Amino acid sequence: MHEFFEKPFINTKVNVVWGEMDALGHVNNVSYFRYFETARIDFLKQTGLLSILSEPSHSPVLRDTYAQYKRPVTFPDTLHIGSYITDIKEDRFTMCYEAFSESQQAICTMGYANVVMFNMKTGQKTAISDNMLDILKQYEIGKS
Amino acid sequence: MHEFFEKPFINTKVNVVWGEMDALGHVNNVSYFRYFETARIDFLKQTGLLSILSEPSHSPVLRDTYAQYKRPVTFPDTLHIGSYITDIKEDRFTMCYEAFSESQQAICTMGYANVVMFNMKTGQKTAISDNMLDILKQYEIGKS
Amino acid sequence: MHEFFEKPFINTKVNVVWGEMDALGHVNNVSYFRYFETARIDFLKQTGLLSILSEPSHSPVLRDTYAQYKRPVTFPDTLHIGSYITDIKEDRFTMCYEAFSESQQAICTMGYANVVMFNMKTGQKTAISDNMLDILKQYEIGKS
Amino acid sequence: MHEFFEKPFINTKVNVVWGEMDALGHVNNVSYFRYFETARIDFLKQTGLLSILSEPSHSPVLRDTYAQYKRPVTFPDTLHIGSYITDIKEDRFTMCYEAFSESQQAICTMGYANVVMFNMKTGQKTAISDNMLDILKQYEIGKS
Repeated sequence: MHEFFEKPFINTKVNVVWGEMDALGHVNNVSYFRYFETARIDFLKQTGLLSILSEPSHSPVLRDTYAQYKRPVTFPDTLHIGSYITDIKEDRFTMCYEAFSESQQAICTMGYANVVMFNMKTGQKTAISDNMLDILKQYEIGKS
Repeated sequence: MHEFFEKPFINTKVNVVWGEMDALGHVNNVSYFRYFETARIDFLKQTGLLSILSEPSHSPVLRDTYAQYKRPVTFPDTLHIGSYITDIKEDRFTMCYEAFSESQQAICTMGYANVVMFNMKTGQKTAISDNMLDILKQYEIGKS
Repeated sequence: MHEFFEKPFINTKVNVVWGEMDALGHVNNVSYFRYFETARIDFLKQTGLLSILSEPSHSPVLRDTYAQYKRPVTFPDTLHIGSYITDIKEDRFTMCYEAFSESQQAICTMGYANVVMFNMKTGQKTAISDNMLDILKQYEIGKS
Repeated sequence: MHEFFEKPFINTKVNVVWGEMDALGHVNNVSYFRYFETARIDFLKQTGLLSILSEPSHSPVLRDTYAQYKRPVTFPDTLHIGSYITDIKEDRFTMCYEAFSESQQAICTMGYANVVMFNMKTGQKTAISDNMLDILKQYEIGKS
């Protein structure tokens, strides 16, 4: 098995569909942001964060997001999106993504999203709660 | 000017974007249903129906929808979606669409949507209100 | 197990993703046509038709397509799209779709697509080939 | 008129459509990458680069892309995507985007894309050609 699967990632499996290919014949750059969004929500579900985040006083808001394209992907293929956490700050954290292509047995796309916590009642940024912090730290990978 | 523009349609202009083309190099079949949805909401806006429909007691619900593909479309192009009404019944009506391609000077796709009125408070179908009916009839085109 | 799974359908599993929900909070009407397209291509793959259809002299072209919405779907859910064939004619056939919701244990959406065979070299309609016909007939369900 | 329109940008007008809103009721984060792609291709068209780039020996390839969300956008709205160039290197350049919301009279989203030139015949990176460089420099804005 590829070393990708040995990493302490939360994994989300995505089946590439034909209609995501563009006129150049490979998966369009925009589709990866949908994959990352799907992985982000799956991360919240798998880790139990989604139930913690149901309070409007602690809502995660997407500040920015990024993707780097390393290899074009074509249908049919299955991608495994590995998600992990870096740069936990008082009111924000970074979620990183690695998309592993089954057919190519290689990382095809990498990316990240910066998420900031807001209190939707006041419209102000708010600190990451302690129970949320405990979970995020379990999936934090330091930059070496 | 093409005869398309002489018809008593509500017209919605849609710029085709490159990313809507699929691996076959023309606008993907799915995109037309997004165009029709956009035209449907624009019809409600242009005719004033959107303000009438703000009451949850009279909500339009999409029952079914259809598209027939007559000519493939490629980027760049601008489509004019002409919308009109047929088959007004007590609690439902049909909105028909014709998509005219500027570059081909021809209808490329036709379609329709059947819309049923619901009272969202009771979950039951409800009759089209009189003021809504007045507006729909202005854009009704009989089948000949 | 639900009777859906006892039918002689080709089944395609689709995981609903959060981003397919629209501002009304359920899967947008347009998404189902992407699901149906995915099921259509999966049908061709699973039945072996995809290799037969690699010849440009026998290309399937989507003539029209339709969806009827019976129940709104929300994330998270997994849909099973069952595909089968009706109305085989000399140069065309109908592929029908039933989308079964795992969480609701019910058919949520039904639809169809009419596919016409073209010879891309001549631009003319062409007859369904014998080996293609054999396969289509295996998945044909008569209207009763 | 807002100062946005006084900047030496290539401007691309995008009508927000209802179906681009997600379950949170504002334009989904993924949609902006489609807008940026549309602006990127429009930049190539408006500046005449598209004809220069028709040679496979000089193909632009998207290396990475980024978006920062400053204000949520809701339908109806029209966005003006201003595109300009920074960081021209021997074989690559950065295209930056600012999305100005008509209804909010403010920049709602910013982003960039790094584009690398490839010779598709050899699969190797290649230098930006002189005539392409001349055009890029006309739209280059230095970081201050």
